[in-house]
Amino acid sequence: MKIILGPASKELGEKIAELTDIGKVPVVHKTFPDGENYIRLEGKMQDEHVVIVQTTSPPQDSKLMQLAFMADAAKRSGARKVTAIVPYLAYARQDKIFLQGENVSIETVGNMLAAAGVNELITVNVHQEHALAKFPFPARSLSAIPLIAEYFVKKGVKKAFALSPDKGAMHIAQQAQQVLGGECGHLEKQRDRYTGQTSQTGKSLNVKGKTVIIFDDIISTGGTIVGAAKILRELGATHVFTACVHALLVGDAEKRIREAGVEEIVGTDSVPSSASKVSLAPLISKELKA
Amino acid sequence: MKIILGPASKELGEKIAELTDIGKVPVVHKTFPDGENYIRLEGKMQDEHVVIVQTTSPPQDSKLMQLAFMADAAKRSGARKVTAIVPYLAYARQDKIFLQGENVSIETVGNMLAAAGVNELITVNVHQEHALAKFPFPARSLSAIPLIAEYFVKKGVKKAFALSPDKGAMHIAQQAQQVLGGECGHLEKQRDRYTGQTSQTGKSLNVKGKTVIIFDDIISTGGTIVGAAKILRELGATHVFTACVHALLVGDAEKRIREAGVEEIVGTDSVPSSASKVSLAPLISKELKA
Repeated sequence: MKIILGPASKELGEKIAELTDIGKVPVVHKTFPDGENYIRLEGKMQDEHVVIVQTTSPPQDSKLMQLAFMADAAKRSGARKVTAIVPYLAYARQDKIFLQGENVSIETVGNMLAAAGVNELITVNVHQEHALAKFPFPARSLSAIPLIAEYFVKKGVKKAFALSPDKGAMHIAQQAQQVLGGECGHLEKQRDRYTGQTSQTGKSLNVKGKTVIIFDDIISTGGTIVGAAKILRELGATHVFTACVHALLVGDAEKRIREAGVEEIVGTDSVPSSASKVSLAPLISKELKA
Repeated sequence: MKIILGPASKELGEKIAELTDIGKVPVVHKTFPDGENYIRLEGKMQDEHVVIVQTTSPPQDSKLMQLAFMADAAKRSGARKVTAIVPYLAYARQDKIFLQGENVSIETVGNMLAAAGVNELITVNVHQEHALAKFPFPARSLSAIPLIAEYFVKKGVKKAFALSPDKGAMHIAQQAQQVLGGECGHLEKQRDRYTGQTSQTGKSLNVKGKTVIIFDDIISTGGTIVGAAKILRELGATHVFTACVHALLVGDAEKRIREAGVEEIVGTDSVPSSASKVSLAPLISKELKA
């Protein structure tokens, strides 16, 4: 096995190589003056099973093309099997037809990656597991929630209330609860399919005087977290933290979340940023050694 | 037949629909706050042959993904056949392995578009015709050079010397010559495969006292044109124009070309810009009606 260090996840790739002791294949990546990506793999991989570590956080489209080019280059360099490790998988939220005339972006992405040479995909906390079911190759999603919950335990936050912003993410709060040892619950969220606007409603959650950690898979503009933090304040929570796997934190999301009274934002290196406090390297390394 | 008006070539698509009298399918295109593309086709296309007009000029990767999503949406909306009309086809210059470990980007692009649902592709003046030969569907390239040469004739520029910046583009100068009625010739260009640096050498071209139009398929940073214009000045050319199909004009290319003494830069709407003086609508319409 060889690990190809994709330009979008070079640091994470290095960590995985170190933890697993699998040989690295460095990548030369350039952007031409007109914006086109150039990829060259610097290493031998004849008859090898190669693992490309490449997240697809914004700018998603360029990172997807880089991944496709690396898969193609690996196959042309003689690789026998290409596993794409995509910590953050873009377009996973367009996982079905919501309105007539739409496409299913995540299926298009899967089909395109297969065409480029990918034989298997491993991602982390994909928005909906079923999105991977129609990929033309085996694809699975690992959960980083226990790792993230451990971060809080190590920090001294114990028996915190694990809250998910909607019912659909309740399994995330439950996974966190296993590590945190406190209670868990969820808010209710509605989304307008045309405008994309969401609204949240609190219910009689018993968070008064408690430390609450809002757990979600993705934080994008942060609107959901800001709304949840407001409700938690109204319900009398003492401390509010937020944790996610993929901290996209678009625009001034971080500022808005902090202003809503959230004490800390914890994300992973699936989206390299100031919130990347938990590395996915142990999780992915364990999977590769399994 | 129906014409899908891709967001990257909406105006060109409208013109083609008008010239051919083929029904239009408008496209709703949004960019989510995190940068993901959203596509929805607004029209019926059950059992139809649909034609998607979508260039892939910078930002190439996003426009490629939009094209893929439109192809997928068309198929899901019941389209029988999807023809992609891609006036400027990105990544066509990485059409072979130059160094060990590279990929062949243009083949990856072709394979990915096929996976998304494209059944046929028509482009304009692709850098090398052979790049299309390995596409997994029929693909062809039209030439806009006669249309561009006519622009100069209509402007009153007659019997101009048609110059190509290197031998490989000599066929372009020859096509222009057919319309312009003057002479034609080429410079010599070398490219270092590692650095991408190019150098040009003039030969005993007889351009003294003549009007010269430098013809190329693509103008990117403009370095080639600036170098050619310098050589032409040294050789005593009276007037220098430059014409291309795809005027990418990266960064300050336009300024540098003008400062090198080029009187006018003429491109097409394959890359919408201030240089888009010739529309490809008549060329593409003729092809669709054939």
